Amino acid sequence: MEKGVLIADLFRNEHEYIGKKTLVQGWVRTKRDSKAGIGFIELNDGSCLKNLQVIAELEHPDYGELLKRITTGSAILVEGTLSLSPGKGQSVELRAERIHLYGWADPALYPLQKKRHSFEYLRQIAHLRPRTNTIGAAARVRNRLSYAIHQFFQDLGFHYIHTPIITASDCEGAGEIFRVTTLDPAHPVFEGEDPYRNDFFAKPAFLTVSGQLQAEIYALALGRVYSFGPTFRAENSNTSRHLAEFWMVEPEMAFFDLKDDLDLAQAFIKKLVTVALNDCREDLEFFARFIEPELTGRLQTAAESAFEVISYTEAVDILLKSAEQFSFPVEWGHDLQAEHERYLTERVFRKPVGIVNFPRSLKPFYMRVNDDEKTVAAMDILVPGTGEIIGGSQREERPEMLLEQMRLKGISADDYKWYLELRQFGSVPHSGFGLGLERLMQFVTGIPNIREVIPFPRTPGHAEF
Amino acid sequence: MEKGVLIADLFRNEHEYIGKKTLVQGWVRTKRDSKAGIGFIELNDGSCLKNLQVIAELEHPDYGELLKRITTGSAILVEGTLSLSPGKGQSVELRAERIHLYGWADPALYPLQKKRHSFEYLRQIAHLRPRTNTIGAAARVRNRLSYAIHQFFQDLGFHYIHTPIITASDCEGAGEIFRVTTLDPAHPVFEGEDPYRNDFFAKPAFLTVSGQLQAEIYALALGRVYSFGPTFRAENSNTSRHLAEFWMVEPEMAFFDLKDDLDLAQAFIKKLVTVALNDCREDLEFFARFIEPELTGRLQTAAESAFEVISYTEAVDILLKSAEQFSFPVEWGHDLQAEHERYLTERVFRKPVGIVNFPRSLKPFYMRVNDDEKTVAAMDILVPGTGEIIGGSQREERPEMLLEQMRLKGISADDYKWYLELRQFGSVPHSGFGLGLERLMQFVTGIPNIREVIPFPRTPGHAEF
Repeated sequence: MEKGVLIADLFRNEHEYIGKKTLVQGWVRTKRDSKAGIGFIELNDGSCLKNLQVIAELEHPDYGELLKRITTGSAILVEGTLSLSPGKGQSVELRAERIHLYGWADPALYPLQKKRHSFEYLRQIAHLRPRTNTIGAAARVRNRLSYAIHQFFQDLGFHYIHTPIITASDCEGAGEIFRVTTLDPAHPVFEGEDPYRNDFFAKPAFLTVSGQLQAEIYALALGRVYSFGPTFRAENSNTSRHLAEFWMVEPEMAFFDLKDDLDLAQAFIKKLVTVALNDCREDLEFFARFIEPELTGRLQTAAESAFEVISYTEAVDILLKSAEQFSFPVEWGHDLQAEHERYLTERVFRKPVGIVNFPRSLKPFYMRVNDDEKTVAAMDILVPGTGEIIGGSQREERPEMLLEQMRLKGISADDYKWYLELRQFGSVPHSGFGLGLERLMQFVTGIPNIREVIPFPRTPGHAEF
Repeated sequence: MEKGVLIADLFRNEHEYIGKKTLVQGWVRTKRDSKAGIGFIELNDGSCLKNLQVIAELEHPDYGELLKRITTGSAILVEGTLSLSPGKGQSVELRAERIHLYGWADPALYPLQKKRHSFEYLRQIAHLRPRTNTIGAAARVRNRLSYAIHQFFQDLGFHYIHTPIITASDCEGAGEIFRVTTLDPAHPVFEGEDPYRNDFFAKPAFLTVSGQLQAEIYALALGRVYSFGPTFRAENSNTSRHLAEFWMVEPEMAFFDLKDDLDLAQAFIKKLVTVALNDCREDLEFFARFIEPELTGRLQTAAESAFEVISYTEAVDILLKSAEQFSFPVEWGHDLQAEHERYLTERVFRKPVGIVNFPRSLKPFYMRVNDDEKTVAAMDILVPGTGEIIGGSQREERPEMLLEQMRLKGISADDYKWYLELRQFGSVPHSGFGLGLERLMQFVTGIPNIREVIPFPRTPGHAEF
């Protein structure tokens, strides 16, 4: 069928189109008629934030009648000549010579009339909300960041690995997990019967909370790998920072120690932020204007300045010496809370901060024990406005120490026999980290609620579509 | 820590390294000693199939003792001078001046000694099998194809969309699906009680079988989108072509009709095959040599020749007129079986074949009804050796016809109110297709069993790790 130019391409290469016959297809954001017999249509095709202004003649012999029926939300084709615009707010406009209406939108029913809608309301019409400026811009930024993640790792010789979604190991016993089953919960199991006898995998199966342990298998064969896929937590949290389903990037590298890991994580964040600043300029300007005034400064700082790196012990000292009143007390051996993290990155250093060498007791069994035997080679990266955005570590590569860690943490050596064998056969120092795509999206867009940075948020009680 | 050059980079730019001090890190595939006091180590770091030959002195004052302990599977560092090799089978070799052993592998225990192992055996040591030639090569090809999928769509202005994994709609009622729950199957529900009252989403939730319907939401806002993620079928099939968890690419395009859809699918396959032929040459030569002798010819045909396009009705005619004895009878209105598909693509046309306009009764409710009202605007693409690799359609964009289709197929209009609304508000002609990454992998590598082309296969009774 007829195919027009994408409006983003048209704006990018205006000079090539001006004075020429041009065809576009999209959805009407607004239409207004002037007394001078001219209709103005703001047309959007989703390829960019900006609408193309279409100038139409109300009394046009071919499309005049059709024009009357065109409403906000209608899908149309316009063919015309692209011209420099005399009006304010746009550089070019399309003077319509032909208009076709694909699909109408009844103004009495279409929920997205020109006005601002609350995010709560938009979540209830999740099938229409990508047609709004904010959700459309978030989708474009998410696309660009996701692709940049692949570009970054591919350029460094990493291999993209699909770690499993359904898993029989519950990782580090990481809190609440979803079960995957073909059993019908409405049909109870008889007392004493093995409930998994007739289940698909013939044993308990879960949705993954992390692909790390499986990525380690491939790092110890291919050298440098990364996974990028959905992960799941069945936590009953209704906050602006938690989702039951979210996307994680998890690189894992053989022959990398904690410092290499931290350097890579820093380069990674800088690259992603730089790509967003360069390639999503229009969408980020929109967010800076309507969502988060400090956005541009924060992103430029993250792209340009060296991250501060301190140890957990130094972080605790700084917090203890500060005059700040925290809701949670600060004490060596306790987790840093969000308020502590944000104080460090927003108030003390005013830029991204890496924290390394956390107490061994706070961290999972697979992190490498430092020579002091009190801390492990872990790292967190904090950014202003968002707090923790990356968590990682050097992995324990020494089989005896890994066994000791498993004993201490109550992990069954039988369940992780394969993980131990990776240390018995050609073990190497290796490291990795995880970055949650939605946390990154919150940092890059300034959008406060995580439900707006993913197309279809899953939270307790919510799994629409 | 010390970081060497990747062996793939070293082979790619040999001239830059010859005569220079070079450091590499990897795993020993084999080691043998010559009578002339020289040890030969085949070193692999996973960056490519080919091993780097290391020449070591058995009596070397620094590493001579260490060398004795080095076994197949050990992880080592070698520093030395890269030289042109006088021997056969390799162009360069590394003359060791320093060797470090990271991790040993006990030859009495390490299962991957130099010999060919069956794929069945390797599946039982899935944590070690990526260290073999075949599984390592498959992982590299899978990585390159996955990245090429993104490159293809990004270059055409598509947006990557993460469609949900957990879903409350069971799509087209597409066969067997997995439930997602936080209920414990060992704790039965009381008779008459709502089993979902205490479940995480407070209603039945499933693992997605396709992101198509959700991708349509974004295509009707952003224009051109694609999803690329895991999908699930709880089918109890133990065949070489079925997995319970597999990766699918699903593009969805506004303003595309069936012909546009078919053209895009053809360009897509040609691009992916061309990338594999160009960038995975060494791995594909390995597969052509050890797995599938016809591989190279098939791939070149797919990359170079125009696909044959016929209607379903023509396909049935060709099959009815053939002298071939099929196990399943051929009749208009019945599904084409694998044997029919392979006959068409392998025997009749000897290249990829597109089949369009299938009987309406065979296809799901969302496919666009043709003017004959007997067929729908569906397409399948078949390739030699694999059969169906892509399925797609133009979607029904007319609300009344969609409602009629739903009535005919017994789909509840209440459950799909949102899907109908996409047709009521700014509906446009649109199309899409789905490609299973593992089927593509089988086509591109010639690997017969689908369990070898995915890192962690999930099949009935199997969810290791």
